[in-house]
Amino acid sequence: MSDLKQEILAMVKDDLAAIEVELEQNLNPYLDLISKVARHILFSGGKRLRPLLMVLCARLCGYKGDYDKTFSTVFEYLHAASLLHDDLIDDAAMRRGRPVANSIWGNSAAILVGDFLLARSLSISAKTGNMKIIRTIAQITENMSQGEIHQLMRKGELDISEEEYMEVIRRKTAVLFQGTCRISAIISDAPNEKEKALSDYGYNIGLAFQMADDLLDYTSDIKVLGKEVGADLKEGKLTLSVIHSLKTADMKDRNMMENIIKNENFSVNDFETLVELLKKCNGISYTQKLASEHIKKAKEALSIFEPSETKEILVKVADYALNRKS
Amino acid sequence: MSDLKQEILAMVKDDLAAIEVELEQNLNPYLDLISKVARHILFSGGKRLRPLLMVLCARLCGYKGDYDKTFSTVFEYLHAASLLHDDLIDDAAMRRGRPVANSIWGNSAAILVGDFLLARSLSISAKTGNMKIIRTIAQITENMSQGEIHQLMRKGELDISEEEYMEVIRRKTAVLFQGTCRISAIISDAPNEKEKALSDYGYNIGLAFQMADDLLDYTSDIKVLGKEVGADLKEGKLTLSVIHSLKTADMKDRNMMENIIKNENFSVNDFETLVELLKKCNGISYTQKLASEHIKKAKEALSIFEPSETKEILVKVADYALNRKS
Repeated sequence: MSDLKQEILAMVKDDLAAIEVELEQNLNPYLDLISKVARHILFSGGKRLRPLLMVLCARLCGYKGDYDKTFSTVFEYLHAASLLHDDLIDDAAMRRGRPVANSIWGNSAAILVGDFLLARSLSISAKTGNMKIIRTIAQITENMSQGEIHQLMRKGELDISEEEYMEVIRRKTAVLFQGTCRISAIISDAPNEKEKALSDYGYNIGLAFQMADDLLDYTSDIKVLGKEVGADLKEGKLTLSVIHSLKTADMKDRNMMENIIKNENFSVNDFETLVELLKKCNGISYTQKLASEHIKKAKEALSIFEPSETKEILVKVADYALNRKS
Repeated sequence: MSDLKQEILAMVKDDLAAIEVELEQNLNPYLDLISKVARHILFSGGKRLRPLLMVLCARLCGYKGDYDKTFSTVFEYLHAASLLHDDLIDDAAMRRGRPVANSIWGNSAAILVGDFLLARSLSISAKTGNMKIIRTIAQITENMSQGEIHQLMRKGELDISEEEYMEVIRRKTAVLFQGTCRISAIISDAPNEKEKALSDYGYNIGLAFQMADDLLDYTSDIKVLGKEVGADLKEGKLTLSVIHSLKTADMKDRNMMENIIKNENFSVNDFETLVELLKKCNGISYTQKLASEHIKKAKEALSIFEPSETKEILVKVADYALNRKS
């Protein structure tokens, strides 16, 4: 584990423990199968980044209530619902080092338990009685499905642009992070400028997080990543480092990359060649640079808050979103 | 078309036309694929029973606003979302005489457009700004997914009881009808007794509607039904007429039925034998009787309302829910 991750974990230990309890208690299903499938996806070593951000941002806004940890589960449930459906769509085999839920309980159970988790999120949100929160949750879910559909439509297509990639990750990932942090301000009755600042913080972290995530597919190894390296490419999912490299490469390099990408059964050697080309064409460094810029923006957004331990953790979480290894 | 259906259609022609417009306008997707898939399931001859009930019940409560038709789309979208996921789960080939969406656009698109329709329902609900409505919608979605999961868990199992069947159809179907009618009263600021009456009306119609729907699988022919006769049985889905017949049959008849049910590739002859046995063991008449009783309750629930044309239509709709042929 990286030093940064250990540092953060030490500082939020109690919060994470409380979030785990809430994730378990608020699941509240009436059927065994729901518990089993939902637990498989929820309790398999997820980072709890979204609920943690919600709890920390609320604290930064001086939240005094007792609903923050309960409410934070909404964002993990929404995330888990989307993972259940994604794994099926991507035909993935592994997630976090374990077989995906649909490979154990079947596609039908994965679809329906995803639906249930979405519905649970809605029920927990409704309990706040706050329309602004409900509207934000509605926007998040609408954006997430649209982002996923956009990604699906462009699968296997080599002409996807950087703008389109950004639009996809904005909808499928950044809007959830943004909503998580923004709702923390709403639930704390924070002034508009703080709501806006946390919205910006979450949005930029979300973008950087997804870019870093997509990059791991080319820079990590399977033992650390918990899933197959090169999985995105096998699914025909072109991410920023590839998109940028295809644009900047000379004809020879571009042809080489295209041949590897188009071949669904590329070999380990092919994949290594591709990674070398992504380095050569600056696809990897470009993605890292862009993600860094968003992390910088995320941290700048926090500038209106007084120094505090909570603020310090949020800065570290931003760095972690960029530099994590899995 | 039956006389009753024609009569109802003549009385609600303008409402149905307005609902069609709203269904189209509120879809509001930013991607072509969403429009295509959503339109395929939404505009394929659905009966619009749910939005129609919402509009009629609101009128019965003296609703004076202009959001009823817009809001009524929520219930058709929720229904369509559930159909998209169901057809995939049931591995169905046809729906309303047309190939199912997932057979045209693939499973992934069907899953994600289902998610989108659920999210749209939530957004439209959120616009009411009414927490009681939001909470009801949340409960509906949670129940629907749980009902579907319950049904999935018991697929192919011969020991499902009548109580379990009722629990499944309550969650997956009746709660949506109930919510539709109840929310009409809420949106109209109707007094509690009217809200309760319409809730009971919708709940009982929902139960009867699903029983009648399940019965059609044994009593209809494919040209009228628009999908394969015996489809439920092929999927291992045991419904009330079968459950009741298995309970009341003598050993010889029960063995015969069990052999047909367990054989996934039963012939047309087998199926006809089964239908004869369902008649002999009173499974069909029992289901019809139970459904009639719920329709009776639904109509009784309307007794607190003064006579009016709207009330008259709602009574006819109740009869239609029971007696329809497809």
